[in-house]
Amino acid sequence: MGKSQIRIGLLGFGTVGSAFVELLETQKSSIFSKTGLELVVTHVAVNDLTKDRSGLNAQTLLTNKPNEVIENTEVDLVVELMGGLLPAKDLVEAALENSKPVITANKELLSKEGRHLFTLAGVRKVDLLFEAAVAGGIPLIRVLRESLLGEPVEKIMGIVNGTTNYILSQMEEKSMPYSEALLEAQNLGYAESDPTADVSGQDAASKAAIIAMVAFGADVSLDDVPFEGIENISSADVAFAKRAGCAIKLLAMVSKYENELEVQVYPAMLPNSHPLSSVRDSFNAVFVEGAAVDSLMLFGRGAGGMPTASAVLGDVIDAAVNLSNRTYRDIGDLTEVPLIQGDEQKSAYYVSVQVIDEPGVLATVASVFAKHDISIQTMEQEGMDREARLVFITHEVEENRLEGALSELSNLSCVEKLGTVIRVLEA
Amino acid sequence: MGKSQIRIGLLGFGTVGSAFVELLETQKSSIFSKTGLELVVTHVAVNDLTKDRSGLNAQTLLTNKPNEVIENTEVDLVVELMGGLLPAKDLVEAALENSKPVITANKELLSKEGRHLFTLAGVRKVDLLFEAAVAGGIPLIRVLRESLLGEPVEKIMGIVNGTTNYILSQMEEKSMPYSEALLEAQNLGYAESDPTADVSGQDAASKAAIIAMVAFGADVSLDDVPFEGIENISSADVAFAKRAGCAIKLLAMVSKYENELEVQVYPAMLPNSHPLSSVRDSFNAVFVEGAAVDSLMLFGRGAGGMPTASAVLGDVIDAAVNLSNRTYRDIGDLTEVPLIQGDEQKSAYYVSVQVIDEPGVLATVASVFAKHDISIQTMEQEGMDREARLVFITHEVEENRLEGALSELSNLSCVEKLGTVIRVLEA
Repeated sequence: MGKSQIRIGLLGFGTVGSAFVELLETQKSSIFSKTGLELVVTHVAVNDLTKDRSGLNAQTLLTNKPNEVIENTEVDLVVELMGGLLPAKDLVEAALENSKPVITANKELLSKEGRHLFTLAGVRKVDLLFEAAVAGGIPLIRVLRESLLGEPVEKIMGIVNGTTNYILSQMEEKSMPYSEALLEAQNLGYAESDPTADVSGQDAASKAAIIAMVAFGADVSLDDVPFEGIENISSADVAFAKRAGCAIKLLAMVSKYENELEVQVYPAMLPNSHPLSSVRDSFNAVFVEGAAVDSLMLFGRGAGGMPTASAVLGDVIDAAVNLSNRTYRDIGDLTEVPLIQGDEQKSAYYVSVQVIDEPGVLATVASVFAKHDISIQTMEQEGMDREARLVFITHEVEENRLEGALSELSNLSCVEKLGTVIRVLEA
Repeated sequence: MGKSQIRIGLLGFGTVGSAFVELLETQKSSIFSKTGLELVVTHVAVNDLTKDRSGLNAQTLLTNKPNEVIENTEVDLVVELMGGLLPAKDLVEAALENSKPVITANKELLSKEGRHLFTLAGVRKVDLLFEAAVAGGIPLIRVLRESLLGEPVEKIMGIVNGTTNYILSQMEEKSMPYSEALLEAQNLGYAESDPTADVSGQDAASKAAIIAMVAFGADVSLDDVPFEGIENISSADVAFAKRAGCAIKLLAMVSKYENELEVQVYPAMLPNSHPLSSVRDSFNAVFVEGAAVDSLMLFGRGAGGMPTASAVLGDVIDAAVNLSNRTYRDIGDLTEVPLIQGDEQKSAYYVSVQVIDEPGVLATVASVFAKHDISIQTMEQEGMDREARLVFITHEVEENRLEGALSELSNLSCVEKLGTVIRVLEA
């Protein structure tokens, strides 16, 4: 065993950073009695030295020069909670170069620079832990890296963005339009004033990339992950899904097919019998399928200061224990894995089409599907004055074949507008 | 790093043992590429040497003398999958004494001898891992021991017995009586021909004891855990729960109140809004509440050869990695924690009473509740010829106060029979 005091240098003191310090303070003696280790935050780097930092111990050194923290020989372990790509990347890199274990909650950093940083941590033989970067307080990363290290994992489906899940839940439960649900999410602090990163699916895509790295050792970065968001989903779509015994969820999908990997984010209709379909409000959940373990789901808080701090603390203890045992957990080298292109993928689809309500329209529209050899599972028509909304659920079809049909449909004179197109998944 | 080949001695080659060997065989090269370790099952102890063991490698040494496995200097690590208290206890003890890490799926052993074995493993500085002993393929133990080591855990509620969950699900979905659902569970192999250990709640109680040890470091053994089963639950009870927007679930409850711990097993009505209420069939799930992490749920297969083998393999890899790093994870000393006695606990209750259907009966019964200062939330009466069934849901009341009322009720001449009494939990 090495030293029993572990000195922590913290970069960033926002919501998660201050929650982390508060949590560590209350749990210090319990952690000591379980591990024999005394964890102390000795240095904190912030942007603005004039702000009130009353949560901090008087002994803690406050600085606005983060380099002083990561280069300090009196800091054993670095916790990066600044977020964003820069300067976090340079700082994490320098900390690892200085052979200090790093704990980070930074999904942007890992989804773009994961491979490089994992390699660096391996070379320096130190831990790089990031439980909090995906699904907040849910211990997904540890379960994938450790419990399931020997499991033939086949598929991971995650509700990993609380903002969009809250919006979709509100639309379903209160028959709210998207814009109203978004506004409510903003008022509650679930969505930012510019909600693009969440509602476009980009945030979920960075988490999908990290999941692919950890679960499949695949060299995937955010740029490799196609994503669709929820901006175009209407209350009519949500209501239809509900009548069909489904819920619409924004899913991060990481699946293995032979030697290829699918890594994508899209909204999908999930039948109520699927455990993910009942995940409501801002909760996150990740469903894992493995050949041996069968189905596994982890459910919890994907965001928020304290749940995220809880995940950070779990990692900090792990790294501290490893440090005192002079060991670490290597994530291994990431390898290039061919990614399946979305348009070769088969799925059933929900397609809504706004048409002029006159005789023969249904036949015209249906014939386009037939011409592209797309068979229809169910069809519904809603009249709206001189217009009508046709809703189809297709049988399984390749995305590019569907797109051919959609582009032909949009050129028909009886079609006012193509509505939403959403994948329909089986239980 | 130590040696790169880890030789495994396996005790027991039943459903889980053979699934473990099969799974390891398919995953061997993937584990090697992730950890640099070659895991080989070199020795297997079985009862009956004459049975067909075609799943085993020709190089594997088969013996009916388990001591030869645990004492063998060519075995690095022992996997105990025999089950039962004896001779498993002596063998695990001897393996630890020989400084070999032990992986076990034996809930009976741990719930009775946990403290002693954990201490021994600590003295010998080797791993004693047991993910598969609670909730099969669900990585609960690792999450509690590692991810949540720093979390102020407040409450753990678990559906940790698949047999009873299957029976209760069938009773709810198909309005089946208990006896019929039990028979179906037996036909499907979910329940044993003598189902007592499952349906009485005893199996769940041993898991509750293990959860209390791991989550709270409490020296709790099976004998300390009061348990109730599901044998007395009728289809009428299940139907009432359903009408009230609830499901009846058999719960292992481990909760912290100040410095006391509640460790119990009982059936409870859970509102549909609670994530555990939608856990169906033979699935298991464990719900954790912590002051920082908020709500967390883990869901998956609680039994079955492959899911259990998956959990065993995760532990084996962990122990192998630790062995090659010359380290281990100490569980720490268990300490005596005062346990709350059930009868001081407050809860709302569902109470069903079978009465003679004549004027004044309801008033008489209601006055008994009033006399014991128990207030009623809802009441329902069902006529059945000359008899009637009265069903009450009380407000919160101490168990001993309720028992006073029940004993007085059972002495009333108009009361034919006291029916089921079930706790009603809030969301």
